[in-house]
Amino acid sequence: MKPLRGRFRKEVEKKVVEYTASIDFDKRLYKHDIAGSIAHARMLAKQAIISNKEAELIVMALTSIRDEMEQGIFAFSDDLEDVHMNIESRLIEKVGEVGQKLHTARSRNDQIALDMRLYVKEAIYNTIEKLIELQKALLDLAEANKDEIMPGYTHLQRAQPVLFAHHLLAYFEMLRRDVERFHDCRKHADVMPLGSGALAGVPYPIDREFLARELGFSQISENSIDAVSDRDFVIEYQAAASIAMMHLSRLAEELILWSSAEFGFIELDDAYTTGSSLMPQKKNPDVAELARGKTGRVYGNLLAILTTMKALPLSYNRDLQEDKESLFDSVDTLLSTLDVFAGMVRTAKMKGDKTRRATEEGYILATDLADYLVKKGVPFREAHSIVGGLVQHAIENEKSFKELGIDEYKSFSQYFDNDVYSITVDSSVKARNAVGGTAPEQVKRQLARARTIVESV
Amino acid sequence: MKPLRGRFRKEVEKKVVEYTASIDFDKRLYKHDIAGSIAHARMLAKQAIISNKEAELIVMALTSIRDEMEQGIFAFSDDLEDVHMNIESRLIEKVGEVGQKLHTARSRNDQIALDMRLYVKEAIYNTIEKLIELQKALLDLAEANKDEIMPGYTHLQRAQPVLFAHHLLAYFEMLRRDVERFHDCRKHADVMPLGSGALAGVPYPIDREFLARELGFSQISENSIDAVSDRDFVIEYQAAASIAMMHLSRLAEELILWSSAEFGFIELDDAYTTGSSLMPQKKNPDVAELARGKTGRVYGNLLAILTTMKALPLSYNRDLQEDKESLFDSVDTLLSTLDVFAGMVRTAKMKGDKTRRATEEGYILATDLADYLVKKGVPFREAHSIVGGLVQHAIENEKSFKELGIDEYKSFSQYFDNDVYSITVDSSVKARNAVGGTAPEQVKRQLARARTIVESV
Amino acid sequence: MKPLRGRFRKEVEKKVVEYTASIDFDKRLYKHDIAGSIAHARMLAKQAIISNKEAELIVMALTSIRDEMEQGIFAFSDDLEDVHMNIESRLIEKVGEVGQKLHTARSRNDQIALDMRLYVKEAIYNTIEKLIELQKALLDLAEANKDEIMPGYTHLQRAQPVLFAHHLLAYFEMLRRDVERFHDCRKHADVMPLGSGALAGVPYPIDREFLARELGFSQISENSIDAVSDRDFVIEYQAAASIAMMHLSRLAEELILWSSAEFGFIELDDAYTTGSSLMPQKKNPDVAELARGKTGRVYGNLLAILTTMKALPLSYNRDLQEDKESLFDSVDTLLSTLDVFAGMVRTAKMKGDKTRRATEEGYILATDLADYLVKKGVPFREAHSIVGGLVQHAIENEKSFKELGIDEYKSFSQYFDNDVYSITVDSSVKARNAVGGTAPEQVKRQLARARTIVESV
Amino acid sequence: MKPLRGRFRKEVEKKVVEYTASIDFDKRLYKHDIAGSIAHARMLAKQAIISNKEAELIVMALTSIRDEMEQGIFAFSDDLEDVHMNIESRLIEKVGEVGQKLHTARSRNDQIALDMRLYVKEAIYNTIEKLIELQKALLDLAEANKDEIMPGYTHLQRAQPVLFAHHLLAYFEMLRRDVERFHDCRKHADVMPLGSGALAGVPYPIDREFLARELGFSQISENSIDAVSDRDFVIEYQAAASIAMMHLSRLAEELILWSSAEFGFIELDDAYTTGSSLMPQKKNPDVAELARGKTGRVYGNLLAILTTMKALPLSYNRDLQEDKESLFDSVDTLLSTLDVFAGMVRTAKMKGDKTRRATEEGYILATDLADYLVKKGVPFREAHSIVGGLVQHAIENEKSFKELGIDEYKSFSQYFDNDVYSITVDSSVKARNAVGGTAPEQVKRQLARARTIVESV
Repeated sequence: MKPLRGRFRKEVEKKVVEYTASIDFDKRLYKHDIAGSIAHARMLAKQAIISNKEAELIVMALTSIRDEMEQGIFAFSDDLEDVHMNIESRLIEKVGEVGQKLHTARSRNDQIALDMRLYVKEAIYNTIEKLIELQKALLDLAEANKDEIMPGYTHLQRAQPVLFAHHLLAYFEMLRRDVERFHDCRKHADVMPLGSGALAGVPYPIDREFLARELGFSQISENSIDAVSDRDFVIEYQAAASIAMMHLSRLAEELILWSSAEFGFIELDDAYTTGSSLMPQKKNPDVAELARGKTGRVYGNLLAILTTMKALPLSYNRDLQEDKESLFDSVDTLLSTLDVFAGMVRTAKMKGDKTRRATEEGYILATDLADYLVKKGVPFREAHSIVGGLVQHAIENEKSFKELGIDEYKSFSQYFDNDVYSITVDSSVKARNAVGGTAPEQVKRQLARARTIVESV
Repeated sequence: MKPLRGRFRKEVEKKVVEYTASIDFDKRLYKHDIAGSIAHARMLAKQAIISNKEAELIVMALTSIRDEMEQGIFAFSDDLEDVHMNIESRLIEKVGEVGQKLHTARSRNDQIALDMRLYVKEAIYNTIEKLIELQKALLDLAEANKDEIMPGYTHLQRAQPVLFAHHLLAYFEMLRRDVERFHDCRKHADVMPLGSGALAGVPYPIDREFLARELGFSQISENSIDAVSDRDFVIEYQAAASIAMMHLSRLAEELILWSSAEFGFIELDDAYTTGSSLMPQKKNPDVAELARGKTGRVYGNLLAILTTMKALPLSYNRDLQEDKESLFDSVDTLLSTLDVFAGMVRTAKMKGDKTRRATEEGYILATDLADYLVKKGVPFREAHSIVGGLVQHAIENEKSFKELGIDEYKSFSQYFDNDVYSITVDSSVKARNAVGGTAPEQVKRQLARARTIVESV
Repeated sequence: MKPLRGRFRKEVEKKVVEYTASIDFDKRLYKHDIAGSIAHARMLAKQAIISNKEAELIVMALTSIRDEMEQGIFAFSDDLEDVHMNIESRLIEKVGEVGQKLHTARSRNDQIALDMRLYVKEAIYNTIEKLIELQKALLDLAEANKDEIMPGYTHLQRAQPVLFAHHLLAYFEMLRRDVERFHDCRKHADVMPLGSGALAGVPYPIDREFLARELGFSQISENSIDAVSDRDFVIEYQAAASIAMMHLSRLAEELILWSSAEFGFIELDDAYTTGSSLMPQKKNPDVAELARGKTGRVYGNLLAILTTMKALPLSYNRDLQEDKESLFDSVDTLLSTLDVFAGMVRTAKMKGDKTRRATEEGYILATDLADYLVKKGVPFREAHSIVGGLVQHAIENEKSFKELGIDEYKSFSQYFDNDVYSITVDSSVKARNAVGGTAPEQVKRQLARARTIVESV
Repeated sequence: MKPLRGRFRKEVEKKVVEYTASIDFDKRLYKHDIAGSIAHARMLAKQAIISNKEAELIVMALTSIRDEMEQGIFAFSDDLEDVHMNIESRLIEKVGEVGQKLHTARSRNDQIALDMRLYVKEAIYNTIEKLIELQKALLDLAEANKDEIMPGYTHLQRAQPVLFAHHLLAYFEMLRRDVERFHDCRKHADVMPLGSGALAGVPYPIDREFLARELGFSQISENSIDAVSDRDFVIEYQAAASIAMMHLSRLAEELILWSSAEFGFIELDDAYTTGSSLMPQKKNPDVAELARGKTGRVYGNLLAILTTMKALPLSYNRDLQEDKESLFDSVDTLLSTLDVFAGMVRTAKMKGDKTRRATEEGYILATDLADYLVKKGVPFREAHSIVGGLVQHAIENEKSFKELGIDEYKSFSQYFDNDVYSITVDSSVKARNAVGGTAPEQVKRQLARARTIVESV
């Protein structure tokens, strides 16, 4: 009989082994699992539950098992279900009876809770690092084009002129919130669950604070049943990852739009675009498209774990095994997307002539005309209505604002005067000079602030 | 420069290659891709776009490439992006210039649409087969226990006695609808897209009906732009799989409940249960729990593809590459879950003594008492109210219905008489004898009907 | 004590009444509920379970209750929980004891299953009608612009010229599949559940086939436990609605893009656009944006019901009450979106000059050049590579294909000759003349086929 | 022409008005909208953009409009689209031209961002209050039953005995994390967006810090484009609400299980249960079931807003209007569920005799036997295997551990001695005395800690 089958009369059916084995994906946790086991062995020795010599032997063997895994020479076995049993079994192979003592005062339930928490803490660290890398790339691109003007859009209609740098800084802000969110989500991951046993705690004089210190946790769990049932920290990562991917999907959408012939606001570097198997002229923004598409998988992963957790009675249920693959997938997706975006943004060429020209067509200064009237004493809502009529008149006469004569202006409002012609794209941008506005002075301040933020990490 | 980079000055960045390459997962489509290419080559020859000899050479080489893949000796390369380019590249290696002609009148856009449709059709076939296998297992278990009685539940409260077989047949019905749903979803997969080119069709005298016949499709696509943009058939599979997993999660939930010490209605076979690393007495219904948990991943996959497709402009966008992994995962999950459930159900032992005893406790026959009064002329709503009071009285006096004296009955309604004692669990079941009801006569008919359905496939 | 509280000692807590009452939303089902009750009363009389006179009285009273509801003078009460109890209570008010007999051989469990099925069947009918209305609008717009050419896109990059009508017909195809899908989903809704009782069937000599005929169902349910537990037909509607909204979100995205200053391919009618509270010049495609946004709510509704159904033990559980609001919301959202889209599409002005001009810029004919070489004997993959180089050369020299000299062509391939200049946007379109291709001949055929489809309904 | 239609030639189509109007649901924001407008008017006056007298008039009128709304006498109009235009229009009705000045230096884009942030901050406050109320109810129930023992479960199999209070405290911990999460999510809501205008900022000398102080915000937004595009704070609320509902669905599941005849661990108060329309004996845990079912709608709402936000280009798009209904629904659902759960938990009767009896059946002390052997020197893995055999032996001989003779024990391991009989449910619980374990000493400490937490708020 295989391990853990003491009470059974039959081995597990082959297809059940395949269905339930997690070793194919949880082997990824080997470093965390071994770190946990080493700390556990040391704690057992410190508390005289095993001898120092036994602990030493176990630690040594675990270290060599980790080496085997790192070198790719460890023979994982499906029959041994998961990373824990694979390691324990090899440990016993190596050190015999002593190895059978490692699982004293421990269950796979608190062990996997520990491994997952170590993994999530590491993932958060890496995610924040990559987020900042992309923030820097955005900042570099913004600074390199800090005087360029582009149309700001609402409803994908040109709305008001803005600085290109101002637009990019909007993404900087999104990523800043992402960084904060991942910081917040560390809090609930940073709780040491070992010592919870299967669910009820363990009947040994263990030292959980020692374990926490050894493993770098700032807190220990306060309720053993909760500790083995809880996957909030996984969901929090998934939720934060979903929001981050949502932000990236918006950036992706804009890069795709801007790369189109119709917009032509940006040129992605050849190294970040791909060709077509059929159409020789194509230069496609595949990276941005794929990132936009991958938003779906991260949302899906969030829903998956939420669904899995719904209505589970306490404490540990095998359903919880499903927390892993979707998490690994979200972490991998987010990290690689951030990584490739940093390169794509950093190498992109902004085409300032195209964006400025786009601000000079159409009636993008209409709000400025309304504000002009307000400053002359017209109530805003009336000014809005006057300029609405003026726009209609201009369209029908196929004239730009500049091409309208002063008489035409005056026929809509007596308050219009020759100074109306001094309203330009540049004056428009410059005028929006409250904090957060697009005026060069404000944007300069924001660029400096942003630089400080990324440098201070 | 690598293939398709004719117009570029730079190779693609290494991390972009990794980010965009699909070969790791789309190699799974090799059989479908090669089948499509063989049909395409034959069609090109038939239409004299290439020579018969060229076609023969191509077909021969493709066949040998398929062999290499089946033997696991094909060297897939990330640099060649996807399964199509890997195969084409090897083809050219094998047959030189002739191989360069295969992609005539074709694009990867219609090629991958073809591969996916072939794959989905095959997945549907396999899914239906496994659904029927599980239906048979349910039917076997139902027939083997066709006289056993159990409490039927609403709100997880014992409601009315039912035949165990009747309860199992409810799952048979769910699976029957699943089978029908997968049949329906074949319709939109069974459309041959080749000949759509990149999006606009192709400028060659191709024969699309020939391709459809060769590849076993009953229809050809009618609009080339739609054909390369459409993934409805993938979503339909995902939706049908989600509903099927929902059904299985309900069955899983019941198997878990029934395996608990509290219910004790069923004993799962040792070969379908697992032990605990800590608690030696445990015999856990892991398979059922894991299936219940995996419902999350299939729902997640459905949401993923829906999200990915949202608001994509026509026609092909690289986002569509994200249709694959989630589909493969749902197919694998559903097939393996059905497979392992068939074994688990077939080997389960129903404990008829426990289920019958459960029907004999409590007031499960209260509705029968109300119906008794109705037959004596009391309006139903009044009868309901009378029996409600009777139940309250019985609880307070800690008596079962049987233990209540006829005087106690009469104090609630003069219509009660000694024949009230002839109401039993068996009479209750027997009385529900309209089509679909739990009476043995009806259930027997249903078992026969179900057997006919699964045999007729 | 209120109805159904016979066995309780206390009334329900006020906030529990509010929490559990469904009358605020399920009153919407009053027509279906009353239709079901009328049929039920007639069946009871036909089977002599109640007298003909009683049935007549009940039917009359129910009819007058329906009138009260239609006139908005019915006083719904939260205390009576749901539409069923509100109606039954009013019935008893009207006809006394006879009214207490209506619920004989029935439970709210099969009653609500009936109501929902009647509702879904009606919703499917309405949905298909609106889908066809939008198909007609697309067809009208396509026919009105059947000669216009626009760039076809892949990766939002101009790829190959296509007919505008061909592009619109891609949406026609999507909607055609939607219609088929809603037809398919009628099948599982069209099953009459009455007679299932609470879960076990009923102990009366009912005639379920009679009920089915009276209520217009083609089938009766075969298993009473399944009949009260099953909401597959709701999920199927939600899934089909999600796919339909996905299609509409793609159309919305394109209408938004095309309405932008950058594309300028279309002008939406003033009646289908809105202004800005601040910017007087704005004309926003709000309808399309809102529809795109509403895709989220329909996806959310699908996931909601799937989540709710996950792992529910049989048979009826109160969780099922949550099937309604999300369904009503999806039906309302889809119907109103289809309706407003039909008007928006029908009134849109296509700007053929802008779309044609867009095909004349850039290297959209590159594939045609490659095909040109193929026809002269160059293997396709080599031709692709040659034209890739040519495109690069042209970009660097800021020349269009037309502006390249024959010597420049020849320097890339000897196969180029003067006839290369006869490749035009029109010749390109015309050449794609296989079924499904963008050639005028094919598109004409498709328009005729589409017209036949919508007329034949 | 209606407001904002200055540039249009036609009114909006009736069905477009209905489709796009948000007044039916955003009127709920009237208090927040008016508070924002009052602060805005004061700021305009303070900065001399309007006169003090004008501001006074506006504030007075807005106050009286709020009164009209509170009294339900305000006539909302669909034609005026949203809450902003309804209020502005009434304002102009009341104070004429002065009212037309209110929208100076403001856009609906920053106005709605403000309203939503005020709303979310208020929702967070209320949510935390209700979470704490439920924590208190759990704590009261735990304290009232602090000595009761029940089986702890893994895989819904009895695993080890635990204190009932310990089990309830697991939920306390979940809710504690929920409280923390809602605190965290306040951070990104607590940012004042006014002054961002439509997207680019405003060309007036506004004082945004003054606005923040007036409206109780701790920060102002730093980028105007982000400020009108950002709904992270909505998604964060939705994500936190989803996790909280997941926790409640687990509690609901357990209350349903415990209320079943099979478990019988708890009796819900009559005031928190409902009856059946058909079965007079039924007492159903409807509240718990409905809460479990409503988990679906909250998950759906989260996915809805994530889907809506996916791939939206900057800045404001009408899609964002879809942020509201789903948020309101999640807030209402979560608050009412917490509220009704607090009452249900507080009034529930725990049945300590039933739970204790359940720990005395079966082999729940198997782990303790293994630990017994470990303390005698047997390595844990071997001890586990020995006890596994012992369990199998006991099952086959239909004996409990107590009924096994010392010779039977010894035949499995020589280390067993007479003191094995002193292992009891109570000794088992008492032994798990590390922090977080189920020993009475630990649980007492946890109860005190929990009480401190809820009192300290």
